Amino acid sequence: MNYPFPSIHSQQFQDDLFDYYYNQPGTMPGTIKIDSTAKGSEIVLIDYDANQATRLSNLTPSDCAAYLESPSVSWFDVLGLGDEERLLSLGEIFHIDRLMLEDIVNVPQRPKVEEHPQQLLIITQMVIPKEKGIGFWQEQVSIILGQNYVLTVQEEPERDCFNLVRDRIRHNKGIIRSRGADHLAYALWDAIIDTYFVVLETYRERIEELEDEVILRASDKTLGKIYTIKRELIALRRAIWPQREALNYLLKDSVPLISKPVRRDLKDCYDHAVQIIDLIEVYSELLGELMNVYLSSFANKTNEVMKILTVISTIFIPLTFIAGIYGMNFNTDVSPWNMPELNWYWGYPACLAAMGGIAISLVIFFWRRGWFKDMTMTKIKQSDS
Amino acid sequence: MNYPFPSIHSQQFQDDLFDYYYNQPGTMPGTIKIDSTAKGSEIVLIDYDANQATRLSNLTPSDCAAYLESPSVSWFDVLGLGDEERLLSLGEIFHIDRLMLEDIVNVPQRPKVEEHPQQLLIITQMVIPKEKGIGFWQEQVSIILGQNYVLTVQEEPERDCFNLVRDRIRHNKGIIRSRGADHLAYALWDAIIDTYFVVLETYRERIEELEDEVILRASDKTLGKIYTIKRELIALRRAIWPQREALNYLLKDSVPLISKPVRRDLKDCYDHAVQIIDLIEVYSELLGELMNVYLSSFANKTNEVMKILTVISTIFIPLTFIAGIYGMNFNTDVSPWNMPELNWYWGYPACLAAMGGIAISLVIFFWRRGWFKDMTMTKIKQSDS
Amino acid sequence: MNYPFPSIHSQQFQDDLFDYYYNQPGTMPGTIKIDSTAKGSEIVLIDYDANQATRLSNLTPSDCAAYLESPSVSWFDVLGLGDEERLLSLGEIFHIDRLMLEDIVNVPQRPKVEEHPQQLLIITQMVIPKEKGIGFWQEQVSIILGQNYVLTVQEEPERDCFNLVRDRIRHNKGIIRSRGADHLAYALWDAIIDTYFVVLETYRERIEELEDEVILRASDKTLGKIYTIKRELIALRRAIWPQREALNYLLKDSVPLISKPVRRDLKDCYDHAVQIIDLIEVYSELLGELMNVYLSSFANKTNEVMKILTVISTIFIPLTFIAGIYGMNFNTDVSPWNMPELNWYWGYPACLAAMGGIAISLVIFFWRRGWFKDMTMTKIKQSDS
Amino acid sequence: MNYPFPSIHSQQFQDDLFDYYYNQPGTMPGTIKIDSTAKGSEIVLIDYDANQATRLSNLTPSDCAAYLESPSVSWFDVLGLGDEERLLSLGEIFHIDRLMLEDIVNVPQRPKVEEHPQQLLIITQMVIPKEKGIGFWQEQVSIILGQNYVLTVQEEPERDCFNLVRDRIRHNKGIIRSRGADHLAYALWDAIIDTYFVVLETYRERIEELEDEVILRASDKTLGKIYTIKRELIALRRAIWPQREALNYLLKDSVPLISKPVRRDLKDCYDHAVQIIDLIEVYSELLGELMNVYLSSFANKTNEVMKILTVISTIFIPLTFIAGIYGMNFNTDVSPWNMPELNWYWGYPACLAAMGGIAISLVIFFWRRGWFKDMTMTKIKQSDS
Amino acid sequence: MNYPFPSIHSQQFQDDLFDYYYNQPGTMPGTIKIDSTAKGSEIVLIDYDANQATRLSNLTPSDCAAYLESPSVSWFDVLGLGDEERLLSLGEIFHIDRLMLEDIVNVPQRPKVEEHPQQLLIITQMVIPKEKGIGFWQEQVSIILGQNYVLTVQEEPERDCFNLVRDRIRHNKGIIRSRGADHLAYALWDAIIDTYFVVLETYRERIEELEDEVILRASDKTLGKIYTIKRELIALRRAIWPQREALNYLLKDSVPLISKPVRRDLKDCYDHAVQIIDLIEVYSELLGELMNVYLSSFANKTNEVMKILTVISTIFIPLTFIAGIYGMNFNTDVSPWNMPELNWYWGYPACLAAMGGIAISLVIFFWRRGWFKDMTMTKIKQSDS
Repeated sequence: MNYPFPSIHSQQFQDDLFDYYYNQPGTMPGTIKIDSTAKGSEIVLIDYDANQATRLSNLTPSDCAAYLESPSVSWFDVLGLGDEERLLSLGEIFHIDRLMLEDIVNVPQRPKVEEHPQQLLIITQMVIPKEKGIGFWQEQVSIILGQNYVLTVQEEPERDCFNLVRDRIRHNKGIIRSRGADHLAYALWDAIIDTYFVVLETYRERIEELEDEVILRASDKTLGKIYTIKRELIALRRAIWPQREALNYLLKDSVPLISKPVRRDLKDCYDHAVQIIDLIEVYSELLGELMNVYLSSFANKTNEVMKILTVISTIFIPLTFIAGIYGMNFNTDVSPWNMPELNWYWGYPACLAAMGGIAISLVIFFWRRGWFKDMTMTKIKQSDS
Repeated sequence: MNYPFPSIHSQQFQDDLFDYYYNQPGTMPGTIKIDSTAKGSEIVLIDYDANQATRLSNLTPSDCAAYLESPSVSWFDVLGLGDEERLLSLGEIFHIDRLMLEDIVNVPQRPKVEEHPQQLLIITQMVIPKEKGIGFWQEQVSIILGQNYVLTVQEEPERDCFNLVRDRIRHNKGIIRSRGADHLAYALWDAIIDTYFVVLETYRERIEELEDEVILRASDKTLGKIYTIKRELIALRRAIWPQREALNYLLKDSVPLISKPVRRDLKDCYDHAVQIIDLIEVYSELLGELMNVYLSSFANKTNEVMKILTVISTIFIPLTFIAGIYGMNFNTDVSPWNMPELNWYWGYPACLAAMGGIAISLVIFFWRRGWFKDMTMTKIKQSDS
Repeated sequence: MNYPFPSIHSQQFQDDLFDYYYNQPGTMPGTIKIDSTAKGSEIVLIDYDANQATRLSNLTPSDCAAYLESPSVSWFDVLGLGDEERLLSLGEIFHIDRLMLEDIVNVPQRPKVEEHPQQLLIITQMVIPKEKGIGFWQEQVSIILGQNYVLTVQEEPERDCFNLVRDRIRHNKGIIRSRGADHLAYALWDAIIDTYFVVLETYRERIEELEDEVILRASDKTLGKIYTIKRELIALRRAIWPQREALNYLLKDSVPLISKPVRRDLKDCYDHAVQIIDLIEVYSELLGELMNVYLSSFANKTNEVMKILTVISTIFIPLTFIAGIYGMNFNTDVSPWNMPELNWYWGYPACLAAMGGIAISLVIFFWRRGWFKDMTMTKIKQSDS
Repeated sequence: MNYPFPSIHSQQFQDDLFDYYYNQPGTMPGTIKIDSTAKGSEIVLIDYDANQATRLSNLTPSDCAAYLESPSVSWFDVLGLGDEERLLSLGEIFHIDRLMLEDIVNVPQRPKVEEHPQQLLIITQMVIPKEKGIGFWQEQVSIILGQNYVLTVQEEPERDCFNLVRDRIRHNKGIIRSRGADHLAYALWDAIIDTYFVVLETYRERIEELEDEVILRASDKTLGKIYTIKRELIALRRAIWPQREALNYLLKDSVPLISKPVRRDLKDCYDHAVQIIDLIEVYSELLGELMNVYLSSFANKTNEVMKILTVISTIFIPLTFIAGIYGMNFNTDVSPWNMPELNWYWGYPACLAAMGGIAISLVIFFWRRGWFKDMTMTKIKQSDS
Repeated sequence: MNYPFPSIHSQQFQDDLFDYYYNQPGTMPGTIKIDSTAKGSEIVLIDYDANQATRLSNLTPSDCAAYLESPSVSWFDVLGLGDEERLLSLGEIFHIDRLMLEDIVNVPQRPKVEEHPQQLLIITQMVIPKEKGIGFWQEQVSIILGQNYVLTVQEEPERDCFNLVRDRIRHNKGIIRSRGADHLAYALWDAIIDTYFVVLETYRERIEELEDEVILRASDKTLGKIYTIKRELIALRRAIWPQREALNYLLKDSVPLISKPVRRDLKDCYDHAVQIIDLIEVYSELLGELMNVYLSSFANKTNEVMKILTVISTIFIPLTFIAGIYGMNFNTDVSPWNMPELNWYWGYPACLAAMGGIAISLVIFFWRRGWFKDMTMTKIKQSDS
């Protein structure tokens, strides 16, 4: 039986952090595969212009067609990837080609931006911190930007980060109602990228705790914690890095569907992505250093344990040997050479004195090598704390 | 599932992962060398257009010439590199120059794309997972794309990943029959790149197993497993990296033989290659961290073993010494100074009491240093699990 | 109870080195959030031309408006971010748009340069060494350069590095009074970048001390010191790296608000930033090496402790065993085979001689392996030092 | 006395792998220094066109002048750098300027390509494996390509890799006789680059041996082997890397002396250089991993040794203490409290029973911690192998 | 030769390797600060054309003005930075602006090239090996190239590397007298860069010594040596890297003051800088590997020490326990169960036989685990060496 880590149990690592989608080699490009556990695809529409904003839920794909042509901005929000038929008919109504639909439905895909004749496809990854502040859910959100509509497709219907955007539209806060569909797409992506800050905040706290733990009370559980965080940071970096690339692509090249003011806003979004990557790098570096400190602290402890063992053993082993000598049963009667010390008048005190002398010499030897100093210091430090 | 490493025997590492082809320095460029163990080169033709699809096997090179000129798309699939004569006459019929033929026959070569006057040469590496889920076979597939034909040359006749493509042609699934030879070349390459996902999937499972193993039951076999996976990931990266470069070359530069829609499809292929490289990097990083955790866990264990030894030794060594003292045979008759304790009324109880006192002091000393807490905690944790 | 590090206590790491600002995902871009602990925003004006220089403190935003149009150079210095109303009205008077104001007020932001129609926004980070020479305060300074004014906004009203610049203006030292607002902006940024040299100077000294400590008197506190410096260098690099990028941007692209001579001066500033980054890299590398040396020195020490234990144990354990043999109480009377040695005439001396022989053999054994040489050398070194 | 490595003796590392040439600072550029141990410079000419090939040896420089103007391709092969006068007069006849001559004679130089008005200078490094398959000789070969001649200058007259090229010219194999001087220069360089494959082949074998050795029978000699290979790979990379750069330069820029078909051939050469660098990187990575495995395997072994010591000590030390107690000589006659156990009827069996109980408890304790399981497993594995 | 490190005392690391110059933040750009320990600034002129060469020492700045206009090449060599007044008046006469003067006087600065209207400023760092072959002096040399003059300013008057250049001018060796001022500047910089080769040569020897030391006789002093060399290599790289950049700048861009033939010569200089950086990288890599080997060799040694301790302890501890048993004083008279063995006829021989049996079993146990083989091998190896 071995050293168990009850809190770092087997199941912990069997998450979806490093998930990816792939087809059987040779599968026809554009093949769509519905995950059997996915929940059905509700369609929610928020249609608005500067004067009004309407919210309609439970639309059918054919309901959507009517709103496509209206001059107002329409945000079709598809919640869940479970209803194949509905997703296919959406694809037809919105003129989404099969390869695009494949990227939207077969999740997770690597984030990217793709220009299509009348549309811009943005694949993003949203992260939501788990309840206890450890780990996060990762969910793909695909954004399709058309002339005067935005279609978002969310992997998971229950969680998202768009509530504040919905509020801004409903209550006409800021400028969002007076701007076009491209501004809406930007606002949604901006909200997605800001979720990384929320998740990173939990890592800052966990790393600060680890810093104290590693130096003050390093145990075998510390190791598992360092590894877990490192692992999650790698997953976070894998999700945000391609989004930075995608943003950079939109900033560099002039894309017709993105108006100039929105491009300027996207610069802000890009700055955030850069800052997030910066932070992930910094945290990874800190964890690397912490691992070193952890390893060193054990070399340290082992050294101290060894010293204690060595001091005690080295002092008592020779003394025990001497006691052993005079415990021998050589017959003092048959020979004057057989252990005459046993019959000396001062035999026992002389023996004790010799033992004392040896012990004191050894103590002085270790003292001069500085071994006691270390241990005494540690003791004093203990009473301080 | 537990991937077995029965024992880390010598043969395990003598695979072909890091194989490469080279000639004796100064050899004439274009020299072809047939591997004596290679199997003969069967030629299989699949000829199709939108209306029909024919499959012919066991063709001779001269049979091929007839199909070269027909307007239908012809896929000549050469299985095996063992028949020098046939390969040379194929070279003549298809106007493949000597340097190209060298790259096709003298395997393995580094993947690449080369433009030739009437042809495009694509050297790829296909990977097939081994039966038990550990390791993979790597095989070179050379694709030559001409005006209305595709010639593929496979290193190993028995395994490939093209069955689904053949099905799509035979049963006219999707658009493949209505497109040209360039689409076929893309479909084949896409299938080859998707094999990497299949292989990577086995690594995901093996790494997840390792994560638990390293923390819960690290043994010396763990080390061999980490090294084996690292080694195979290096080999995978070496095979996919140049294919990404080759795809990028086709995307950047306009190549006459590749039509515009196929170029767009190749973008999808490129995205997959990027994702594969991403995953390989992520897995390598995780393995590096696991190696650190492995090393630390041993420092940890050694420390704990040392503590047990030190506690037991440090407590009993002084006691044994005292027992040794009173086991000495100094003659109490010749002198009142010789071990008078032996004749005291309370001598033995006092001796036991002294020993008890020393033992308790040392236990308290170690208790205050927190050594027992660690050990007790471990014990409690054991009963938890 | 564990090993405490009294000087590296828990609070030490809970500083703001890796702080960053973020909004709730979905928040309206341009939302300003005043930190409740921030101190109110005093406005100080220094207005000068070649002939005169005036200093006015405690201005209101509307006072500023008058000076905006004057041909003299006006430096509006806003001290503190605590007064939301004043900051908003400043924003209106200076035509600072909401996104700019967000970057200025919601600190800390990543340093950058942004061109706006009539203004140049420069976000910088200033560092001030703490009193005891360990660690530093980091503070955001935002510089807005307009046609003939400079507006600086400081996060913290009490500390800055601009006193020598104020002196140069007041006492008309050098050319600063005869140059425009762009020169002032450069002079301020130059002062901010030079603060990094002051902070780095403290690291040079601390690293030199560490070099001696690691080799001569490495203890468990050393580890904490190495980690602390590494951590602060990471934070420093994170602050200066984007400023180098920002300077490079100004040098590369021709920005209308920056005159040619000032661009030449900024080259000097850029050279300093490069040198600072160079130094941070060099210090990080040195610390990495020191960590290695630290780890090795413990492997070394443990090896030596082990040797002492092994020599003493290996010599005395066999001897103690022999003494134990002759301490047994087999009855020599019932059998001539029962420990006849005890009754031999030379029994005891022979026994001692055998022990001596064993001890000498073992000493010679260890001597030839070179164990004593090492230990003697160490002793000599100690008396030297 | 210390741990000797008989096979890794001091002289092993005093090779020329990291050699380089330099002058006293301030020396006139173009100064030539003949190494006193270099062997004299024989000149061998191979003159050929499509119809004939002549070989002349022991030419004088002035003999060469005649062949320079002839339309046939002339390959002047200078063997050895020991004859200053001859080298200088060659320099005059071939119009080689002083700086070029310096690079040719003062070996070793970094590989490079330099365009001169009528000539192309190619500095290359050739590697030849040593006899026993360990290590390699490195030798500079300078190639000067003129209009219709090639001049090669070899550092070491006795070894080269050009025999197959000479055969191809003599026996008119392939196309070499029908092509110009640029093709000859390519053929020579190609042969030089292929020598790296030959050397790398020896490393592949050595690394495969090391893989088994590290895991199955790691000893202190293993360390020296890993270091030696790493060192030689660094030297190989240093030699091939600049040749890849030089080849790339010729491929990118159009150089008048290189005809278009030869440029195409050089692409093949470049591919080989890239593959060699790939392999060197892969081998270096594998060695890094092996070093980790080596280190871990020792942590492992030390842990196991410690466990054996701890189990044995922990079980017997308390027992020995109890035996020591009842070996004390307290006088049972003077007091009923003095070791009454000695006179009990069941004293000795009870004592043995107590000892047995303690031993069994400890065995169970260690059993439950899994220590015996590990040791038993190791035993089984040993009998397997 | 053995490089001595007598003891690693504190003073060793307090050198100027990582020195840099900085001003108080906010200091006026162009402020000059004379180091109080600097020695006064002697001016030495060497004026030459193809026909003559004159050397004048102890010039005043005003003496210089006369030579500035003459068509001959004038090399003004300023030795030392101690005389502020003289440096300032030089600045006026040579039209050196304040920022340039700051770079020249406030040493050390990062090497760079700056184009000024009539001048080219080159900041270089020269290195001179210290007397005992350990470490080096680093000194800034600023080169100002004008139309027909070169002004060099040396930090330290006593050492330089220009004697061979002075000889070449005086004795009209080579082409230096027939070329312009730009050629002189090149010759000086070339001499400075060649000093790095001289310093690197000492490292090659020291690393070769270390290679043997680490494997054959690693001690704690080895660690200090590795660290010292690593540290000095970092400093060297910091000095040469920016000079390579500066040279590259001159090669890339066409600078009016540099004639075309001199630009060609600078290519040679650039090649040297690249080779130096190559070597520094190679040496750093080798040192990194040596550090690994050093660490491993200690893990190795500790393992062997542990084995010796474990073998001896494990064999003798059980034997000593048995001896302890029969040393107990249970009264054999009161009970037939009390140690009847003591009165058996074959008691003592049976006891010895049991001990022998246990000892032999354990020796066989360790033998089969291969522990003695290792130790025996080590012994055999020792007699070999």
